Amino acid sequence: MDIRSMKRAADVAAGRCKADLVIKRANYLDVFSAEVRRGDIAVCDGRIAGIGDYSGETECDFGDCVVVPGLIDAHMHIESTQLSPESFASLAVPRGTTLVVADPHEIVNVCGIEGARHIARAAARTPLQVKLMLPSCVPATPFETSGAVLTAEDTAKLLRSKTFFGLGEMMNYPAVAAGDDEALGKMLAARLADKPADGHAPAMSGSQLNAYVVSGARTDHECATAEEALEKLSLGMYVLLREGSASHDLANLSGAVNERNFRRFALCTDDRHADDLAEEGHMDHVLRTAVKSGIRGEIAALMCTLNAAECYGLKGKGAIAPGCDADFAVFSDLKDFNCRAVFVGGKKVAEDGRPLFSARGGLPRAVKNTVHVRPVSADDFTIKLTGSRARVIGIQRDTLVTRSLIEEVESRGGDVLLEGTDLLRLAVVERHFASGNIGLGLVKGYGLKDGAAATTVAHDSHNMIIIGDDRQAMAQAAEELVRIGGGMALVHGGRVMSVPLDIAGLMSSARAEVHIARLKKLQAAARAAGVKEGVEPFMTLSFLALAVIPELRLTDRGLFDVASFGFTDINA
Amino acid sequence: MDIRSMKRAADVAAGRCKADLVIKRANYLDVFSAEVRRGDIAVCDGRIAGIGDYSGETECDFGDCVVVPGLIDAHMHIESTQLSPESFASLAVPRGTTLVVADPHEIVNVCGIEGARHIARAAARTPLQVKLMLPSCVPATPFETSGAVLTAEDTAKLLRSKTFFGLGEMMNYPAVAAGDDEALGKMLAARLADKPADGHAPAMSGSQLNAYVVSGARTDHECATAEEALEKLSLGMYVLLREGSASHDLANLSGAVNERNFRRFALCTDDRHADDLAEEGHMDHVLRTAVKSGIRGEIAALMCTLNAAECYGLKGKGAIAPGCDADFAVFSDLKDFNCRAVFVGGKKVAEDGRPLFSARGGLPRAVKNTVHVRPVSADDFTIKLTGSRARVIGIQRDTLVTRSLIEEVESRGGDVLLEGTDLLRLAVVERHFASGNIGLGLVKGYGLKDGAAATTVAHDSHNMIIIGDDRQAMAQAAEELVRIGGGMALVHGGRVMSVPLDIAGLMSSARAEVHIARLKKLQAAARAAGVKEGVEPFMTLSFLALAVIPELRLTDRGLFDVASFGFTDINA
Repeated sequence: MDIRSMKRAADVAAGRCKADLVIKRANYLDVFSAEVRRGDIAVCDGRIAGIGDYSGETECDFGDCVVVPGLIDAHMHIESTQLSPESFASLAVPRGTTLVVADPHEIVNVCGIEGARHIARAAARTPLQVKLMLPSCVPATPFETSGAVLTAEDTAKLLRSKTFFGLGEMMNYPAVAAGDDEALGKMLAARLADKPADGHAPAMSGSQLNAYVVSGARTDHECATAEEALEKLSLGMYVLLREGSASHDLANLSGAVNERNFRRFALCTDDRHADDLAEEGHMDHVLRTAVKSGIRGEIAALMCTLNAAECYGLKGKGAIAPGCDADFAVFSDLKDFNCRAVFVGGKKVAEDGRPLFSARGGLPRAVKNTVHVRPVSADDFTIKLTGSRARVIGIQRDTLVTRSLIEEVESRGGDVLLEGTDLLRLAVVERHFASGNIGLGLVKGYGLKDGAAATTVAHDSHNMIIIGDDRQAMAQAAEELVRIGGGMALVHGGRVMSVPLDIAGLMSSARAEVHIARLKKLQAAARAAGVKEGVEPFMTLSFLALAVIPELRLTDRGLFDVASFGFTDINA
Repeated sequence: MDIRSMKRAADVAAGRCKADLVIKRANYLDVFSAEVRRGDIAVCDGRIAGIGDYSGETECDFGDCVVVPGLIDAHMHIESTQLSPESFASLAVPRGTTLVVADPHEIVNVCGIEGARHIARAAARTPLQVKLMLPSCVPATPFETSGAVLTAEDTAKLLRSKTFFGLGEMMNYPAVAAGDDEALGKMLAARLADKPADGHAPAMSGSQLNAYVVSGARTDHECATAEEALEKLSLGMYVLLREGSASHDLANLSGAVNERNFRRFALCTDDRHADDLAEEGHMDHVLRTAVKSGIRGEIAALMCTLNAAECYGLKGKGAIAPGCDADFAVFSDLKDFNCRAVFVGGKKVAEDGRPLFSARGGLPRAVKNTVHVRPVSADDFTIKLTGSRARVIGIQRDTLVTRSLIEEVESRGGDVLLEGTDLLRLAVVERHFASGNIGLGLVKGYGLKDGAAATTVAHDSHNMIIIGDDRQAMAQAAEELVRIGGGMALVHGGRVMSVPLDIAGLMSSARAEVHIARLKKLQAAARAAGVKEGVEPFMTLSFLALAVIPELRLTDRGLFDVASFGFTDINA
């Protein structure tokens, strides 16, 4: 911003000279009044100069459509899409999303801070604005081996950098409430850097919640009930209504929204899969869901524009008003939210669902070839029990919560004998430092026969996780993942199939449609190999290592009992 | 903020240790839900640690009263109270005000930036938090001699200092809309410093308003109608509903507030006189007026708490929530807003209308003895006309707008002869540099007989303005103002009375009640000396020099015609 551009903006606004672009006779969402108004929107040097009666070098007319400020996803992880930032943008931007607040928690757990820097650089090649939150929990738990560790001291240093817009969701809410030095040190770092800190406080309430909020957690996206949302809201948190691929909270929470408090909600996806993005959409889908849940379209749109901008202090965002960035999306209406065109900085970047940009850059060394395992063989998957009763991870349909089961298990020749049972071997192989750490366990309810499935997406440290009934197939699956530099692999009936996730073993550098097609094929093959209905072949697998969701998990360091929050023995 | 205080806050919030102070069983305004809730409010290290069930070293119970975040006056000039910052605080704080956004426009026009620094230092001795805006229009017009000049370059430099919270109301809105370099340069300075810039745009609309808003004016407190307010609001301005001593806009504007847009309004007094503060109140009075105008008490209170805090980016202000500063006021209810107690930073600072603090400091040289005039004598007030028709300033009842009259005026011996007419002499004597500049004019409708009235409060450059029918009395009044270091003086029937405004000739260092008593006595004497009903003896006088209000004004450089925006001749 300099005096010349100030003058030009004033000249355009005052009608003394033509705008670069004018959306003529636009119905537009006035977010300040929560009403649709009509006027010409004049754009100059990438910003909105005025709304009224204007002419421009370029003029367009979108008829009865409604122009809405660019949609903001208030909290998400790009890695969950398994797409590169560029491919994610190619799906999200044509749906009306122009800005996401992204926590690169997964890639930083693998590659350290260089992973986040790659996301920032890759996103910068697209029109999508990515505000990066510095992951607060690397590693997510001390019970697994992650590729990086960020201390409170690192956090304080990194938050001073422009790369990071704020502190990512503080998932270690018990530590914050307990007054733990490291956890509070990270919250303090955000405060001293004058940057927002996201919260993550499922079912937290009362004095514990007060302790979390007083430490600086600004948002929460983990509410399960309207009552929970209202408690958090009244303590000053922004409540992010989440509608992702796995978590569908919006309908449950919409009852919390009323005409007095609607300005304290924002919308987010948290985790959204590539196929859902392609088929259902991104924030446009969240908006449709909000409207179906009974929230007025104007109010829903406000939540993912003005409210999100205010929540995060995003200057010049979230509104169609003089001085704001000319980021806006043209929708059929405020009910179906079919996106006709998207503008970022006054440039048309998408039209009729297609991106008008194509961005692709090389991958830096830091995010490539991130699968470092000590060579594994079938013998590594041998499970030697001391008796006949074993602690088994029980997978349940349609939930990530597992049960901790005690099962009778036969053994022969120093290994378990699983034929004729619903049990499978599970291994988590440390893949960051080739330490040779392998955690072994047993799983019930997954349903694969005659082979193995494996992935390098294993929350949150993203070691290699392998499931199967055949030790040889498990070794083959591991080898395949090493060969392709990370991804998902299926070995069935001697045949090896895989989908590469060449970026940190988490994301594919392929175009979105290519990756989605590959993934669908692999998922279908896994289903054909016996993975049960109600179990997502690879997603379910990737959460079996997350030592914070009840009841029983497996990390590279061993079997973990979430209730007692400590390691346990497979021998029950 | 350090890790120790973070830990302590978390400990108190989580109930692991006692709070410093707990307001037990408080009804409190939850600004996020716009509802009154009930809970113990726990305070630790000056901030709110938690709301729920707490115990504290000190506990109090305010029964059925309602605890409201400390009230914020979103735009005001302390100088208008004619009180020192300390005395102003002694009246405003017991009414529930804990923060004011103050533009020291008047004192800076007299003393330059040292005037603002004095306000900041004096306010810092009180519990009242004063966010100082850097005056944007010094001088207000180029048609008068002010005590200081602030260029765009000065503005850029000063806005980098912590002393200034933002840029004060940009009254030269035509220059901004016209793209004037100096005016835009000041707006640019605010933007580059990432600080708010207040607007002032009476009756501005359409493309001119767009040009003003695009340049960065965030607020407007000059709306006259609901329609005007709604236009400004929908362009992204915060609309400040003003209820001051002279301007009573709230009732006119309350119709603009609805359940969708109420978060974009704040409340302000702009100019409030000492006696009104003492008798009617400060923001508590504005709140009562808002409720009488049909705005729900919760919403009105939100406007001068959360909304004001968001408008200006005041972190930790405007809410009763964990992490916020423990600034709150205890009111009888949300209708009468009788203030029972006020806390700032968790300390009780007022109770039952009385301040629990007394602050008084010395005056720095920069703000004392600011009346520098070349000695004047009766002859200086001689008005020599070339003919018998003169251009006369016509004072009207109950408005600051004057009329430009043409009157037949007799002369004798090289001077006007005013006996038997309603005409008086008016003189504006430059008082900053003793330049000897004197502007002379004639006034009709004021009503003083046999004497003179004078003041060093003469908007906006605050030269000495003297009105009278007796040249000798005028010289005596001027002498008295010099003697007392500025203030208000009345000479009537040979008797000289005065009220000192020893701080820059604008404000009194006396205690509020002393100043108010003196002022009332002087006003009564002026009334007794013939000043007409419907004319405020000294306030009316002080606005006769303001060359931006129609129709005819007088500055130290001469008679000014506002319609043609240029000097004019007394000879018509």
